[in-house]
Amino acid sequence: MEKIESTVVVHNIAKRHNVGTMARSATAFGVSELILVGRRDFNAFGSHGSTSHLRLRHFHSLNEAQTYLKEKNFDICGVEITNDSLAVNQHPFRRSTAFLLGNEGTGLSAKECEICDFFVYIPQYGCGTASLNVTVAASIVLHHFGVWAGFSERTREGNKFVVAEKPVRQVRRNFCAETDESVVEERKIKRENAFHGFFDENGTTDSSSNMLDTLFSD
Amino acid sequence: MEKIESTVVVHNIAKRHNVGTMARSATAFGVSELILVGRRDFNAFGSHGSTSHLRLRHFHSLNEAQTYLKEKNFDICGVEITNDSLAVNQHPFRRSTAFLLGNEGTGLSAKECEICDFFVYIPQYGCGTASLNVTVAASIVLHHFGVWAGFSERTREGNKFVVAEKPVRQVRRNFCAETDESVVEERKIKRENAFHGFFDENGTTDSSSNMLDTLFSD
Repeated sequence: MEKIESTVVVHNIAKRHNVGTMARSATAFGVSELILVGRRDFNAFGSHGSTSHLRLRHFHSLNEAQTYLKEKNFDICGVEITNDSLAVNQHPFRRSTAFLLGNEGTGLSAKECEICDFFVYIPQYGCGTASLNVTVAASIVLHHFGVWAGFSERTREGNKFVVAEKPVRQVRRNFCAETDESVVEERKIKRENAFHGFFDENGTTDSSSNMLDTLFSD
Repeated sequence: MEKIESTVVVHNIAKRHNVGTMARSATAFGVSELILVGRRDFNAFGSHGSTSHLRLRHFHSLNEAQTYLKEKNFDICGVEITNDSLAVNQHPFRRSTAFLLGNEGTGLSAKECEICDFFVYIPQYGCGTASLNVTVAASIVLHHFGVWAGFSERTREGNKFVVAEKPVRQVRRNFCAETDESVVEERKIKRENAFHGFFDENGTTDSSSNMLDTLFSD
């Protein structure tokens, strides 16, 4: 049997600090690669250094990400409440799976739903909220996938799991590494999207969002 | 069979915004009462209004909370990695349960562990982080408890769970309601702890921690 893996596809997550907490959960639950689609910058706040242990891969479009995942024989699973969405605790998994999470406000778009092979949702029992925080939802799903896949448990020491030595640092902090081709492609998209303010032009760690690091930790 | 319930005991959670996100998950997973021990103020940021649907109960000490829970025949379950901690996905539950979460940095203290009947932990598979974010951990545990208890699922509409009308608002926003006896007791503790700056003296929503509401939402 081929090795089972999981990954998370981050597209249009509006709050970049959510990516940090998501990275922490991802590495806790055995994800070795996080896929960023669209913007390449993120805020590692909340990751507690765990982004050093994750490979980050960047694609400019969902279709490119889909092609990459299909070549690796991954299922793409949308985390969203749809009519045919399955309860995640029933473990409706078949093989290595990439989890696509919706935007905090609007959930998965029609375009995002199109690339999904199936959907899971997290049952709710109370009347006080329409949905869960996006990193909470991602974490519950990745947890269940790990249980289903039978990933072997990390060694513990006292009341903590043992953290590995940090591998060689990513090319640029809080920024997904790029290839020559992606630079050319990105410049094109940047020109097209310039007035949306979609990309941070500087890409350094002193962008305004990182000021939050000084206010917050978890 | 008596009705099964769950609750969360919040004691020494250092980041008050974590309580907001925890409240959102709590109400999603059928918790109707959140117990605050020690400080009564919290930041509802991240709760998405869900604190309106939660009863908040306050105790000055862990022992008072324990007495209350034992009168209601609740188990007290610590969420912590200990030698005899059980994997939460094995659903080691027996009856209504209160979940006690550890501080973000240090986990459960010896005193907190003392009031616990048993412990659960969340298995981790990767090497990149020693532990999960406290609200993520609480959410995974409450989710599993709901599955085990067989709580009935909330009605959905489109891709959201239906949120109930807001009930009558809590006495004071972001502040747990108090009784006459608790006021007397609190004044005593306040005097004792004055120089620690432990309590917000004003208790209004314009305390510094609430400024974060303008920066963040999730």
